[in-house]
Amino acid sequence: MTTVRVLIQSKAGVLDPEGEAVKGGIERLGHEGVERVGVGKVVDIDFETDDTDEIESRVEQICDEFLVNPIIERYSYEILDNQ
Amino acid sequence: MTTVRVLIQSKAGVLDPEGEAVKGGIERLGHEGVERVGVGKVVDIDFETDDTDEIESRVEQICDEFLVNPIIERYSYEILDNQ
Repeated sequence: MTTVRVLIQSKAGVLDPEGEAVKGGIERLGHEGVERVGVGKVVDIDFETDDTDEIESRVEQICDEFLVNPIIERYSYEILDNQ
Repeated sequence: MTTVRVLIQSKAGVLDPEGEAVKGGIERLGHEGVERVGVGKVVDIDFETDDTDEIESRVEQICDEFLVNPIIERYSYEILDNQ
C-alpha cells in the first residue's frame, strides 16, 4: 500500500476568508506578530498499488479532473510510504 | 519571517464524511484500488519572529486552545523556512 499526501491551497492573490478568520482568532488569543494565515486541505489517499509511476499519473488525473479548482487553487503532493 | 505548516487530521476511527465523499468521487472517475481517503486541513502560519523555541510554543498554544478539537482531531507541524 502507498499513501499519497496532497496539499490543496489557495493561489497567491486569491481571497482566503478561512485564513483571515483563523488569523483573527489567533490575534484574539493574544498572539501578536502573525503576518498571514493560509488555510487549505490535506488529502491523504491510500492506493493498493506500489507502482510509483501509476500512482503519480493517477494523482495528477484526480487533482486535474476533480479535486482541485485550477482557477483559484494550486496543489502539490508527496508519496509518504511505499510498503 | 518563519512559516509553520500545521496539518490537522481526523483521529483514527473518527468518521470522515468528506474523505468518504472524495473516495466516492475518485471511484466514479473510474479509479479502482483506492483503499481510503482522509481529508483534513493544512494551515500555514507566517510568524514575524525567527525564534524557533518561541514559534513552537506559540503553535502548540494556538492548536491546543483554538485550532484543533482534541476529541476528534490530531495535529502535527513543521517549520518550513527560517529566513
